[in-house]
Amino acid sequence: MPNILYFRPEDLEQYIVRFLTSCKVPADQARTTAEILTMADLRGIHTHGITQLHVYYGDRLRTGLIEPVTKYAVVQETDNTICFDAGNGLGQPAGVHAMKACLQKAAEHTIGVATVRNSNHFGFAGYYSMMALEKNMIGVSLTNSQPLMTPTYGRECILGTNPISVAVPTDGKRPFVLDMATSIVSMGKIRIAEIKGEQVPAGYGVNAQGEITTDPSTIINEGGLLPLGGTDILSGYKGYGLSLLVDILSGVLAGARFGTNIGRRISPVPTPVSVGHFFMAINIEGFRPLIDFTSDMDALIGMLVDSPKVEGQDRIFIHGEKEFEKAEEHRRSGVPLPVEVVEKLKAKGQETKVPFDLTPLG
Amino acid sequence: MPNILYFRPEDLEQYIVRFLTSCKVPADQARTTAEILTMADLRGIHTHGITQLHVYYGDRLRTGLIEPVTKYAVVQETDNTICFDAGNGLGQPAGVHAMKACLQKAAEHTIGVATVRNSNHFGFAGYYSMMALEKNMIGVSLTNSQPLMTPTYGRECILGTNPISVAVPTDGKRPFVLDMATSIVSMGKIRIAEIKGEQVPAGYGVNAQGEITTDPSTIINEGGLLPLGGTDILSGYKGYGLSLLVDILSGVLAGARFGTNIGRRISPVPTPVSVGHFFMAINIEGFRPLIDFTSDMDALIGMLVDSPKVEGQDRIFIHGEKEFEKAEEHRRSGVPLPVEVVEKLKAKGQETKVPFDLTPLG
Repeated sequence: MPNILYFRPEDLEQYIVRFLTSCKVPADQARTTAEILTMADLRGIHTHGITQLHVYYGDRLRTGLIEPVTKYAVVQETDNTICFDAGNGLGQPAGVHAMKACLQKAAEHTIGVATVRNSNHFGFAGYYSMMALEKNMIGVSLTNSQPLMTPTYGRECILGTNPISVAVPTDGKRPFVLDMATSIVSMGKIRIAEIKGEQVPAGYGVNAQGEITTDPSTIINEGGLLPLGGTDILSGYKGYGLSLLVDILSGVLAGARFGTNIGRRISPVPTPVSVGHFFMAINIEGFRPLIDFTSDMDALIGMLVDSPKVEGQDRIFIHGEKEFEKAEEHRRSGVPLPVEVVEKLKAKGQETKVPFDLTPLG
Repeated sequence: MPNILYFRPEDLEQYIVRFLTSCKVPADQARTTAEILTMADLRGIHTHGITQLHVYYGDRLRTGLIEPVTKYAVVQETDNTICFDAGNGLGQPAGVHAMKACLQKAAEHTIGVATVRNSNHFGFAGYYSMMALEKNMIGVSLTNSQPLMTPTYGRECILGTNPISVAVPTDGKRPFVLDMATSIVSMGKIRIAEIKGEQVPAGYGVNAQGEITTDPSTIINEGGLLPLGGTDILSGYKGYGLSLLVDILSGVLAGARFGTNIGRRISPVPTPVSVGHFFMAINIEGFRPLIDFTSDMDALIGMLVDSPKVEGQDRIFIHGEKEFEKAEEHRRSGVPLPVEVVEKLKAKGQETKVPFDLTPLG
């Protein structure tokens, strides 16, 4: 029995659609959500892929903590901005709808900004920023999230790992796609270490006293993650500031919950998370001819990747590059899922009467 | 003889105006530049204050590397965006002019974005983002800068310390003012350690082979700074990505120089640096009533500062808070300047025939 099974991405996506529609999610919204979860697995961001189907989306849909029908209610609108209320629906259809509105506004008025309140986890932030690439625009995607990170000098989790994603088109080179949690690592990576029975590098997280620990269970259950930069000495207050900034734009500006008002996934009385998102699109033609911009992008990327490497390294990567390569590999080989993940999908499939009966490749 | 002398900020500001006008800078542009340099010293950001007057602005103005008259040429404009060419003038008047245009556009159309190309060092980035606070808007200020930082897995400086500043209004609390280099620390801090004959913490910078060194002279002369996050293990590629993002928005989008095309200050043949800036203003009223936003900001800040501290710490800070407190202290006590800095100002004052003859306080 192999440890890893490979699946056709189309099969996974269709399974997710079947499962979500069984939870009364409308077909189009189920397809959007399935595409984004599958795209995460394709790009190697497995923490945001099908492993989340039950622990977050499924269980919350079935217990009424997420509404099956996502709303696109417009709260306020100008030529350049639009604010939505998702009605506690799925973050993915809400995010796609908002980013489309944003791109439309940027097409007409150079800049578009959209916010979403009363939403849920929207998957990997990079999906939405990358939607701008098809329009040759710069896309920005931010979301706040449940409190998992301690502020500098604090020992309680007040802020989320609040990611920042920005996608920028290029000419011949692959696009620049920054997609980063504002903590050093995501909680998903700590959970993987816990499952494997491994310690994590010193600096990723702290215990209940705010002291650095390498034990993943302590970080998950008692302590929290550290912001990018880590402790004060290496400028962790910068990562803390970036996380706070994301909470301000996605939470406070959007009129969503923020800080510790966001429901924690694991809490004695589960509540809707009610997070917010912030999207922006920048129409490059408003600033300079597109071809001048994209050829300068290629030149800048060239300066970086062609520069001398440190010993033992043969490549300097541009952000998003590893994920594009992973996606190509997984389109050929299939999406790798650990056998334990497949077993859990099967068990939950039986329980929910949507059997996970996909045939692995090879 | 004390090691620190204290000066009235008004006296320093007026001296800078006298010096810049002697370099043929028009009076209004000299006043703007002087205000921003003095404000940096007031806020305790001495690396961006009067110590830079000669080593950067004065010497470059006198040798023709910076044009004394800053241009505000409009390259392209829409309802929401405006792109300027500063004509290789001073970054400060160019930045203030662009941010004002940005705020005007945001007042009329909710969002304003301004870029500047063909500019010079504009001082501390927070000055421009904070201009938005008077209008109760969110301000963003970015600039690219000379290559001083190595990308992850690289050992040559390709990117600058490219700062990010965002200022956000509040109700009763002090505003949030993030103002951070995307490196762990600025080169100014490394220079201070070199002058004091001290080592720097491991992680700030590398030698010519890209290996971590604690010797400031090696970092300055042969190696470079590390991005926020440091090496790969603690996610330094995120700081590298943020620096690259700032170079894309301030350099490539603005049509300014970028990457290694930016002239290094210390180079065999000094050239104009020709950097670019990116500014944005967000009119909160386009999203939700201002008072709802500012009271939520106060609530979010309260959650952070009132949360439990790690042992040995009695405060959790909000970004900008330390600088606001410093400014109040320095308005009372005067701006502290090390005696060596004063001696250099006196020597340069004699050389340039604008004597630094200020009387220190008390």
